[in-house]
Amino acid sequence: MTTTDKDLARELTAPAEPTTAEEVDRIAAASAEAGRLWARTDRAERSRALEAVADALDDAAPVLIPIAGRETHLTEGRLAGELARTTFQLRLFAETVREGSYLDARIDHADPDWPMGAPRPELRRSQVPLGPVVVFAASNFPFAFSVAGGDTASALAAGCPVILKAHPGHPDLSATTGAVVRAALENAGAPVGLFDLVWGAEAGRAALSHPQVKAGAFTGSIEGGRALFDIACSRPEPIPFFGELGSVNPVFVTRAADAARGAEIAAEFTGSFTLGAGQFCTKPGLLLVPSGATVTEVLRDTELSQAAPLLGDRIVAGYHDTLRRLSSESGVEVLRRGSKPEGEAPTPTLLATHVTTLLADPDRLVTECFGPTALVVTYDDETELVDVARAIDGQLTATLIAEETDDVAADLTRVLVDKAGRLLWNQWPTGVSVTYAQQHGGPYPATTAPATTSVGTAAIDRFVRAVAFQNYPQHLLPDELTDSPAAPALRRVDGVAQN
Amino acid sequence: MTTTDKDLARELTAPAEPTTAEEVDRIAAASAEAGRLWARTDRAERSRALEAVADALDDAAPVLIPIAGRETHLTEGRLAGELARTTFQLRLFAETVREGSYLDARIDHADPDWPMGAPRPELRRSQVPLGPVVVFAASNFPFAFSVAGGDTASALAAGCPVILKAHPGHPDLSATTGAVVRAALENAGAPVGLFDLVWGAEAGRAALSHPQVKAGAFTGSIEGGRALFDIACSRPEPIPFFGELGSVNPVFVTRAADAARGAEIAAEFTGSFTLGAGQFCTKPGLLLVPSGATVTEVLRDTELSQAAPLLGDRIVAGYHDTLRRLSSESGVEVLRRGSKPEGEAPTPTLLATHVTTLLADPDRLVTECFGPTALVVTYDDETELVDVARAIDGQLTATLIAEETDDVAADLTRVLVDKAGRLLWNQWPTGVSVTYAQQHGGPYPATTAPATTSVGTAAIDRFVRAVAFQNYPQHLLPDELTDSPAAPALRRVDGVAQN
Repeated sequence: MTTTDKDLARELTAPAEPTTAEEVDRIAAASAEAGRLWARTDRAERSRALEAVADALDDAAPVLIPIAGRETHLTEGRLAGELARTTFQLRLFAETVREGSYLDARIDHADPDWPMGAPRPELRRSQVPLGPVVVFAASNFPFAFSVAGGDTASALAAGCPVILKAHPGHPDLSATTGAVVRAALENAGAPVGLFDLVWGAEAGRAALSHPQVKAGAFTGSIEGGRALFDIACSRPEPIPFFGELGSVNPVFVTRAADAARGAEIAAEFTGSFTLGAGQFCTKPGLLLVPSGATVTEVLRDTELSQAAPLLGDRIVAGYHDTLRRLSSESGVEVLRRGSKPEGEAPTPTLLATHVTTLLADPDRLVTECFGPTALVVTYDDETELVDVARAIDGQLTATLIAEETDDVAADLTRVLVDKAGRLLWNQWPTGVSVTYAQQHGGPYPATTAPATTSVGTAAIDRFVRAVAFQNYPQHLLPDELTDSPAAPALRRVDGVAQN
Repeated sequence: MTTTDKDLARELTAPAEPTTAEEVDRIAAASAEAGRLWARTDRAERSRALEAVADALDDAAPVLIPIAGRETHLTEGRLAGELARTTFQLRLFAETVREGSYLDARIDHADPDWPMGAPRPELRRSQVPLGPVVVFAASNFPFAFSVAGGDTASALAAGCPVILKAHPGHPDLSATTGAVVRAALENAGAPVGLFDLVWGAEAGRAALSHPQVKAGAFTGSIEGGRALFDIACSRPEPIPFFGELGSVNPVFVTRAADAARGAEIAAEFTGSFTLGAGQFCTKPGLLLVPSGATVTEVLRDTELSQAAPLLGDRIVAGYHDTLRRLSSESGVEVLRRGSKPEGEAPTPTLLATHVTTLLADPDRLVTECFGPTALVVTYDDETELVDVARAIDGQLTATLIAEETDDVAADLTRVLVDKAGRLLWNQWPTGVSVTYAQQHGGPYPATTAPATTSVGTAAIDRFVRAVAFQNYPQHLLPDELTDSPAAPALRRVDGVAQN
């Protein structure tokens, strides 16, 4: 029986009650069972299922976008763009699965003369899915980091079932998107139970603690992410937890860059820190500029306008609390405050301080604040840029606004490589493209798993683990490890990569 | 100044006192500083340094092997073989670094028409070292899993400094090996502080807790490894902890295999579970055989001889305690006890039970016991093999002794893929070859990081993290990401692998 795409796109409301412990238990068991069946599908089948989900979501756009607008205050244009990004992402993971190099397939033939001192047996190694993954949706991207977002797409692509803990910020959108995803997967032949939703913080914790669950993925705050990480690590069987938490995304402007194009930098910075009402995890929250900078002068005179309200009450409260605390810190002044916008939109605000104040106690001033604000820090000597880079915690991004002739760039890059997942040169960190080479991660507290990325095709690597088959007969091997695979993938044979 | 290789090989004794907290602090700081310099070296330089260590250890064999023999009771032949394996491993990692595909280098060119809905920036992604790694040495492989073992080799190869927590089971060997490694690295031009040793459990914990340390690696017991994992996870900045803990390595013998070659299987099993006095983490500790098996009959009549004493007093005590407990469990009997060996060697002992006893409470009977013992479990129906596979915890290995026509093999393989890091077919799990496709890992409690391996070239992946460079100028990129790299490596360019 096939449901038409139109049938899938019917507005649903979220359940009135949170998911009970018994229901979480049932969902986890069904998820594990579905995972065993899903792991047996071939890559082509998994790819088609991901594409079916993408198609169904695109078809459901006329239903989904109005609900999203109502629940998140984001504009229709932004939401349509985000949904397009989300379905593109699903299709890119379908391509990644079909192409197969994420399997890192390796074949070592038996070698009696292997120089280790003992004969080498035949070994064939590939990746298998981890098992059920609990995905905690974020509020700030109701499509791209929510129900059918990057974590869900990469986990399903890897062959893992997904238990989606819905974000309370957009409940009806979550319910409706969830129904579209489930129906599309089932129509594509995926096992029942491969994807399900749970509601409420307690249900999320219960799912993460469930013995059948084998990994967690999260996008959100440092506090919330760390609490979940601690649950994942303290289970009788600890499981990996891929949390993307917080980042201030420092931007380092050199003196030469300020001299060459200060006004332009100020305009670009303003566009970046107010984009999406400043609610991106890659918002530049810290701008380092030289003393007497053109950037600062221009910012002081910039009209900061803010059209859109913030996502929800918790973010509004957090914005005002953090802004009030930072403004009252000694050595911090308001560089520019926007005019009070109409309606519920927040007032954009730029704060300013001197680098010596920052370096005296970085933890006091370097803090993520969701919303249209940032801290402009004036330095005197470019070596202070390196000092700041050394002083900050792990970041998702760090940006150099510099000239190619700037000597400080090499030192700064060397320090920042240890601090951030993505380094930018004369571009702005907001806007995280979904590509093969993207890295959206970084040392703690940017993430709880610094080696991994939650955006880009490498995100699939989080949800697989390696298994080696020694001396195994052909008919029991995964296809990609056989001598004549039906769906070939790049392999390393006796240590040499072979297309 | 160059020290000749002969000068390196001078017997040293371990320090009388454990490393103090102040000394750990100094070592960690020096390690971080050395790491910053080491990260700037090119791959060829790192490869040469690893090869220099291998050469120095080979040259020092006449000094090292007698100390090892004295401290571990292992035979000269075994120790010579293990040292050869250790230096081979260092050279294989040198080759891995030179070859460079572990960097997973990716280049996405800018694409204004990228179908995501927004232009794709130029992104170039590679791997950088995590930073200082604390390696906890094991007792059972005084070379291959100790001071200059796989964890040290792979961490240095990745570009990370190593702080080695010496195992108390072979202190003088650790001191001497450590001196050889340090001198070889310094002679090869590596920065001072890149490799150092700490002594004592408290110093190990202090090092793992140190803010400058970015990862831990461990081979040992479940209890000890879990305690260290908990420390690593509960730090203010949690760090990855790669612990290889425990495994009973079940072996599943089908009825057809028993019928075809029961006597041969019994002989091979005896050789495997008594190899190295049964002190391998891949020792087959559980053998499942059909009712009325030839294997069982032959084992009952096998003379179990044991020439070598166990590694140390703690292992002797653990062997006797576990054996006493298991023997006294209801439903467990002694299948065969070896004659009491001369000297301090333990008495090899085979226990036996029925599968229903095992399945009634798997945790009671499925337990790792270092030493020459194993539990032989009789089943009636081959579906019980699948039941046992489902009931057991994570394992380093699982082995099928079967015929190609055995129907149960497919079901068993599907279940075991979720349980073990390496699946073997008609070979024995002891002997872990160092190769490109090796996987020495597995779900908890086999390891604390199921996606990773501690043996084989993929072990290097544990100690790197990805960084993306967006729109970066050529002169500030890592060599492997430039348009014309001095040392090319396999890269993925716009999604396509290119040699």
